[in-house]
Amino acid sequence: MERRTFVKNTFGLSALALVHPQLVFASTKKERINLGIIGTGMRGRSLLGLFLDRDDVKVTALCDIDKDALVRAQQMVVKAGKPEANLFSDGEYAYKEMLDREDVDAVLIATPWTWHAPMAVDAMEAGKYVGLEVCGATSLEECWSMVRAHERTGAHLMIMENVMYRRDVMAITNMVKQGIFGELIHLEGGYQHDLRHVKFNDGINPYGGGVEFGEKGYSEAKWRTGHSVNRNGDLYPTHGLGPVGNMVDLNRGNRMISLTSTSSKARGLHKYIVDQGGADHPNAKVKFKLGDVVTTVIKTQNGESILLSHDTNLPRPYSLGFRVQGTEGIWMAVNKSIYIEGRSPSHRWEDAAPYLKEYDHPLWIELEEKAAGAGHGGMDYFVANAFIEAVKRDAKPPMDVYDAAAWAAVTPLSEASIAAGGAPMYFPDFTNGKWMK
Amino acid sequence: MERRTFVKNTFGLSALALVHPQLVFASTKKERINLGIIGTGMRGRSLLGLFLDRDDVKVTALCDIDKDALVRAQQMVVKAGKPEANLFSDGEYAYKEMLDREDVDAVLIATPWTWHAPMAVDAMEAGKYVGLEVCGATSLEECWSMVRAHERTGAHLMIMENVMYRRDVMAITNMVKQGIFGELIHLEGGYQHDLRHVKFNDGINPYGGGVEFGEKGYSEAKWRTGHSVNRNGDLYPTHGLGPVGNMVDLNRGNRMISLTSTSSKARGLHKYIVDQGGADHPNAKVKFKLGDVVTTVIKTQNGESILLSHDTNLPRPYSLGFRVQGTEGIWMAVNKSIYIEGRSPSHRWEDAAPYLKEYDHPLWIELEEKAAGAGHGGMDYFVANAFIEAVKRDAKPPMDVYDAAAWAAVTPLSEASIAAGGAPMYFPDFTNGKWMK
Repeated sequence: MERRTFVKNTFGLSALALVHPQLVFASTKKERINLGIIGTGMRGRSLLGLFLDRDDVKVTALCDIDKDALVRAQQMVVKAGKPEANLFSDGEYAYKEMLDREDVDAVLIATPWTWHAPMAVDAMEAGKYVGLEVCGATSLEECWSMVRAHERTGAHLMIMENVMYRRDVMAITNMVKQGIFGELIHLEGGYQHDLRHVKFNDGINPYGGGVEFGEKGYSEAKWRTGHSVNRNGDLYPTHGLGPVGNMVDLNRGNRMISLTSTSSKARGLHKYIVDQGGADHPNAKVKFKLGDVVTTVIKTQNGESILLSHDTNLPRPYSLGFRVQGTEGIWMAVNKSIYIEGRSPSHRWEDAAPYLKEYDHPLWIELEEKAAGAGHGGMDYFVANAFIEAVKRDAKPPMDVYDAAAWAAVTPLSEASIAAGGAPMYFPDFTNGKWMK
Repeated sequence: MERRTFVKNTFGLSALALVHPQLVFASTKKERINLGIIGTGMRGRSLLGLFLDRDDVKVTALCDIDKDALVRAQQMVVKAGKPEANLFSDGEYAYKEMLDREDVDAVLIATPWTWHAPMAVDAMEAGKYVGLEVCGATSLEECWSMVRAHERTGAHLMIMENVMYRRDVMAITNMVKQGIFGELIHLEGGYQHDLRHVKFNDGINPYGGGVEFGEKGYSEAKWRTGHSVNRNGDLYPTHGLGPVGNMVDLNRGNRMISLTSTSSKARGLHKYIVDQGGADHPNAKVKFKLGDVVTTVIKTQNGESILLSHDTNLPRPYSLGFRVQGTEGIWMAVNKSIYIEGRSPSHRWEDAAPYLKEYDHPLWIELEEKAAGAGHGGMDYFVANAFIEAVKRDAKPPMDVYDAAAWAAVTPLSEASIAAGGAPMYFPDFTNGKWMK
C-alpha cells in the first residue's frame, strides 16, 4: 500500500504525500470539485459538514427519499453560506437523475447497506468518482459488480474506511512498516460495539428510548436492524479488517485465501426488547438470527492469521480489539499495551502511549487542529480529506474498489461458513492476480 | 459442575464442601494415603514438595528413568524428614512395577505427554487413583482409552488442571454461577506463553542459555520441542479451556460439538535459533510445523462460542487471555477490567479488582496462607489439595476422566482441522449421553 513508503524523515515532502504519494504525482489537479451526496441521514450529514468546511468542494447536489433529512442537509448548506444544492428526492431511483448532471464530479454514498453496490455501480457507469461508506456485502456478486464497473469505466471508487486514519492505528502502521514488530504473524480486529440503542429507538430520536425498528424505527433502526433479524455472519467487517489488512499488504502482495466463522447463540436483542419494552411488546416475538458474537478467522496467502470479532448485541464497552503480533513484538489496543523484544522489560507489558507518540504519523501532527472538530475522534477529517484530494486529481484512491470488494466479501463468506457449520469458505481473487504486483 | 452449588452465604459449611461437595459426602475417608509419583522432573518435584508438606500423604514410591531426577526427588523426601520412598527406574516400563505395589493408593503422573494416557490406563487397571498432569492428546484413541479404563475398573482419574483454582478464575466463576454475567454467550482463553527459553536450552539448565533440544536438550526441551517440530495444532488447550468450560458446564448439561482451527505461519522458533545460535547451528535447518499462533473456535451444544489461542513461539508477555461474556456483562483478564450492565458506568470499563475481592472464593480466603508458598501463584496448592482429599475418600474428582478426555481431544481435532484447511471437526461424546444429566 502507498503508506508503506513513508519514513520518519520526511525530507520536506508534505505529510499528505507520505500517505498518498499517488495523489501528489497525478498529472492534473482541479482546484475545486463539485460533489453530490446520496443519503443525507445522520452519517451523510456528518460528512456533509466536513465538506462544507472546505473551499475546494462545492456541494452541488443532495439526494434522499427522506424529505426531512434532505431539508436538514440543505439547511446546513445555506447556514454555511454556500449556494443551495440541487435536491433529488423523487423515489428510490431519484439518485440516477443526480448522476446525469454534469455539475457533479463525484458522489458520496451514505445510504442503507443494500443500496451501496447498485448506487456505486451506477455512479461509476455515469463516470463519477465514488466515495462509498463502509459495510459488508450481501453477496459476492455485489462485490464483483463494483469491480467490473470500475474496470469497464475507469471510474474510481474509494471505500471510506475512517479507522485507517485512527491516530493509534496510523502510528502502529508506521511501526509495522519500519519493521518494529518484525515479520507479522497474527492480527486481530473487530467491531465490538453495543448497538442495542442504535438498533432500537422510539421512532423519533436516533438512539434508544424505545424498542422499535423497521417501519416504526428511526434512522439506522429503520433498516440496519433488519439485517440482525435475517442474517447471521460478520455484518460489519471493515473497521477491524481494513487497518490490519493494510498492515499485511492485502491486495498489494498478499490476499485473503479463506475464512471460517462461528456464531454464538442470539440472546442480546430479544433480551433488550423484553427488558426495555416488556414481554408483551410485539417485537418480543421477533426471532433474531444474528448471533451475539460472531468470530471469524481468516488465513492469508502470506501465512498470517487474522481474527475478526463482530459483537453488537450485548452490553460492553466499545472496542475494535486490535492486536498486531509479529516475530519481534505485539500491540494490543484493549489494554493499551505493547511489548517489543529487546526494548520492553522482559516478559512485561509496557504502556503503548510513548510508542504512539514516538511513531505518531506526520499527517496527524500537521493536521491535528483541523481534525479536532471532525467526527470519530478526527478520523473522519482524514478520510474525507483523502477522498477530496483524490477526486481533485482523478487519482487512484488509497483504498480502492478491490479493497472494497475484498473486505465486504467477508460478510457473505462468513454467513456461508456459519450456515455450513463452520466450513471454510474461499475468497474470490477480485484482482485476478494483480495483487501479486 | 459441583462448583455450581456454592453460594456466598456458606451456612457454616466448610469452604472445601462448597467447591467439592462430593468429597464431603463420600462414605469413607482414609486419614492418610500412600502416593506414588511417576515422573520426578521439574513438575513432578514441584508437586512432590507440596505433598511432603502434608501429614495426610506418605510418598511411598517414586519412578523416573532419569536417575538424576529420581535422586533429587528422594533427597527432597529425606530432607523433609519422611521415610525414604521406593525407587523405580529400570527402563521405560519400570512404572508397572510401582503399580503392582500395595503400598501405593494413588499415582501422580507428570511425565512427557505421550506417556500420559498409557500410564493412566495402566494405573487405573491396577486399581490406583490417578492424578494426571495436563496436556493435549496425540489422538482421540488416547482419550477413549482413559475413559474405557475408568469405566472398566471404576478407578478414578483427576486431571490436574491448576488454573481452575486461579484466584481470579474462581472469583469470576463465582460471579458466573450467581448469574452476574447473565446467560453466558462467548468465552475466550488460551495458552499465550513465550516458551522459547523452555523449548531450547544449553542441555544443562532448564531455561534458555542455548538452542539445543531433543537428545541434546534438558528437561522439557528434551521432549516437548519435538511436538513443535512435528505437529501443528493447539498442543496445550487445557489451561484456557478448563476454566471457561467449567463456567458453561461442559459435561454437566453441555458439551463441545465442533471446532475449527487456523494456524499462522511458523517463524518464531527458527528465528530464535538463528538469533541465539547463529545461522550455521545445525538446528537452524530444522523445519518447525507448529504455527506460531493457532486459533481455535469451539461451538457448544448450548450455543456458546469458545475461542482458544495457542501462542508459544513469539516474544510476548504471558497471558491466558480469559474473556467471559454474557447477556449482562463481560470480564477480560488482559486489561484487568469488567463491565456489568446497570452497575458499571455506561459503556466504560471498570477495574476488575473490587469485583474479584467482593466475589473472592471462600476457599482462597480460608487457605490463602497455606497456598502462598505453592507454585503458580498458589494454584498448585489447591489442585494438589483437591486431589489428595478426593483420594482419601475415593470420591469422584472435581475434574474427572471425561473432562480429561474432552479437553485433551481439542489437540488432535485442531490438528485435523488445520490439516483439512480449517474444516470443522466434531467432538466424540466421551460420556455417551451422560453429559445431559
